[in-house]
Amino acid sequence: MDVAGRLDLPDLQVDWRTKGFLPIEVRGPGDDGSLTGGGVAAGDRSLFDGSFTWPIMVAKRSALDHNIATLARFSREHGLALAPHGKTTMAPALFQAQLDAGAWGISVATAAQVRICRQVGVPRVLLANEILDGGALRWLAHELGRDVGDAGEQDARQPFDFLCFVDSLEGVRILDEHAGAVPFGVLVELGHTGGRSGCRGLPELMKVAQAASEAKGVRLAGVACYEGTQPGAEEVRAFLRELVKAAETVAPLVEGELIVSAGGSAWFDLVADELASLAGEVLVILRSGAYIAHDEGFYRERTPYTRSGSRVAGAEMRGELLPALEVWAQVLSVPEPGLTLVGMGKRDVPYDLDLPVVRAVRPAARPSGVKPQDLTVVKITDQHAYLTGEGLRPGDLLSFGISHPCTAFDKWRAIPVVDDDYAVIDLINTYF
Amino acid sequence: MDVAGRLDLPDLQVDWRTKGFLPIEVRGPGDDGSLTGGGVAAGDRSLFDGSFTWPIMVAKRSALDHNIATLARFSREHGLALAPHGKTTMAPALFQAQLDAGAWGISVATAAQVRICRQVGVPRVLLANEILDGGALRWLAHELGRDVGDAGEQDARQPFDFLCFVDSLEGVRILDEHAGAVPFGVLVELGHTGGRSGCRGLPELMKVAQAASEAKGVRLAGVACYEGTQPGAEEVRAFLRELVKAAETVAPLVEGELIVSAGGSAWFDLVADELASLAGEVLVILRSGAYIAHDEGFYRERTPYTRSGSRVAGAEMRGELLPALEVWAQVLSVPEPGLTLVGMGKRDVPYDLDLPVVRAVRPAARPSGVKPQDLTVVKITDQHAYLTGEGLRPGDLLSFGISHPCTAFDKWRAIPVVDDDYAVIDLINTYF
Repeated sequence: MDVAGRLDLPDLQVDWRTKGFLPIEVRGPGDDGSLTGGGVAAGDRSLFDGSFTWPIMVAKRSALDHNIATLARFSREHGLALAPHGKTTMAPALFQAQLDAGAWGISVATAAQVRICRQVGVPRVLLANEILDGGALRWLAHELGRDVGDAGEQDARQPFDFLCFVDSLEGVRILDEHAGAVPFGVLVELGHTGGRSGCRGLPELMKVAQAASEAKGVRLAGVACYEGTQPGAEEVRAFLRELVKAAETVAPLVEGELIVSAGGSAWFDLVADELASLAGEVLVILRSGAYIAHDEGFYRERTPYTRSGSRVAGAEMRGELLPALEVWAQVLSVPEPGLTLVGMGKRDVPYDLDLPVVRAVRPAARPSGVKPQDLTVVKITDQHAYLTGEGLRPGDLLSFGISHPCTAFDKWRAIPVVDDDYAVIDLINTYF
Repeated sequence: MDVAGRLDLPDLQVDWRTKGFLPIEVRGPGDDGSLTGGGVAAGDRSLFDGSFTWPIMVAKRSALDHNIATLARFSREHGLALAPHGKTTMAPALFQAQLDAGAWGISVATAAQVRICRQVGVPRVLLANEILDGGALRWLAHELGRDVGDAGEQDARQPFDFLCFVDSLEGVRILDEHAGAVPFGVLVELGHTGGRSGCRGLPELMKVAQAASEAKGVRLAGVACYEGTQPGAEEVRAFLRELVKAAETVAPLVEGELIVSAGGSAWFDLVADELASLAGEVLVILRSGAYIAHDEGFYRERTPYTRSGSRVAGAEMRGELLPALEVWAQVLSVPEPGLTLVGMGKRDVPYDLDLPVVRAVRPAARPSGVKPQDLTVVKITDQHAYLTGEGLRPGDLLSFGISHPCTAFDKWRAIPVVDDDYAVIDLINTYF
């Protein structure tokens, strides 16, 4: 595709292997299974009509659309290119929606993720990570080479711009060694002591940039960092200012457009603020990913839209992000007063940053009067969640908000998309 | 299939969506891709020949075979039927191997997992959990009904024995309400205070058993428990003795064979010991699951084979289990002395009970002299592991042992099976 065009999305995949979906044959008459080809339908159904089994994770269309539009607008208003981090969702249908909203490209974290982007035709892929994997680099060199091959070649594909990070001389050497006709475009990564990858300081970064600019198989395109490992706003600002210095320092070595990239979903306000000075002259790429689904835990606390004192260019951040993901699960047992066992476990819901929170109760039979805020998830095992609180009965359904979209999407191969009344209006496949 | 027969395993699935596999076109000549249909091959390849990308999880054939044979022999020698917990792997190819080794059936934890077992033809499925899901029960009733339908019916399938747990009157009522021509077979679950699901005490259990024996849509088959929530051996023994009492108490209500089930992978010695008195007269079903892959953390510490003082019928436990899973990942960055970033994260390796442990170093270029025991994983994020220790360089490969097989299998859709020299000799697909 060209940037304005369509990805080559594969057919939706839902079949007997897909967690949460029941076979068509046990549903009511008149179900034509129109949405999927796997004998399991999602079109025109309610989440609660017996077409699904518990637990199941759903995504709210209104929240996804709102979040995609919100970050697109933010990026546009601040002169940033947005390459949403695709590792959050690994859902090509959502990549399409992000590109449709004006995203410059898609960021990913691994070679396997690049491969999925390439297969569906994402025109610009930013591997926001180091890559030293010979097999994957051979494949990448092959894919990049297709662009410049004979246009009449049968397997010629559409444009494929690719950038990756590098932070070591070994990295430059390995990229150089595996490059084909098209050199690997790189952003030299700036890190910080105690942080993740990235050169510690400008002198080290300049050494790597110099090597990259000299290697035939490598094209130095700019610099990048990930500020999410910094402890607070002050440190983030200082780090981003160091990135600006790094950009200015490597600029003379860069042929063509200078690229500078930063930004997760917690500090994009400061990225916009600190990189504003560059935004007119260079391509500044923001890589927020979790924003698309937001959450009711980690990112609810950290998003610039609600973080106290978050300001860009002197103005307060306006707007909000909405939590898009809900896991619905059923009460299996209330074996003793105050303890409820729900059929939802480590395979179904994130538990790495916070445990899920109860957002709604849908009693099996009678009005229960139980309030979500009186229920607390205190423990999670492979297939069960332990809740404290009173009044639930076996068979009651609960909706949970999650914390950390990245470890929610990767637990589901197919995710029903619902409207605000829980009609299932679409499906998303993920590829982890 | 009949118990001695073959499951109806689907074709292996590996394609561009599958993490860790590279496309055939970038490999050496002579690769015929014979093992898979998706344009990506695993046959006759080494893990290190550039056919795979990092990270990737592999399973060692020798360890899988050894573990399957070991628990099969243990069960046989102690008069136990084995229904390995399939939720660990959700890999029908491994279910097949377990059934081939004499397993009575397969245990699972959710309706979605029952569905996969049913689709591939597992003849006996034990849902070791409560089920109150109307949609799933309608489907189950439909499947159970197929067995007794007209033998000439087009969609008639092979035998399907199904059992589930129940621990409440609501549970009995909901099962009864959704039953078809064949009643739902149930084991009444015994629990313990502070534990998971299950009736608290025999009086409560008897109430549920009585209701089950009276409900037309339910067939009382016996009792069950999960002893893995008990803190230590003494409590496990006391709990299992209560289960024996429960079995004796409900026996008069059971028509046909009485079934008693217990057992994870930490206490199957005590299950054999305490339920020995029943084993001649009733069907005692052991449900160990994690044993098939074992691990180098949680289960290494807890397996009866190494747990101090573990004895059955007065004799010391003999034998061992072997860790079958390894995650191979690459050093991406060594940004400061003592810190190494590896391309392996929460999507790739379990982190819920313990962090992975380095088991082998395969240096990219020169002999590194780095010893695995001098390297420690101290932190894991979505796509990175943080290691302390000296001497690694970008590009080095590391092998990691894992803790908790259940949260390892569910991160991989396709797992290469390797021999002891890392030749890839098979593939496993998982369905989570």
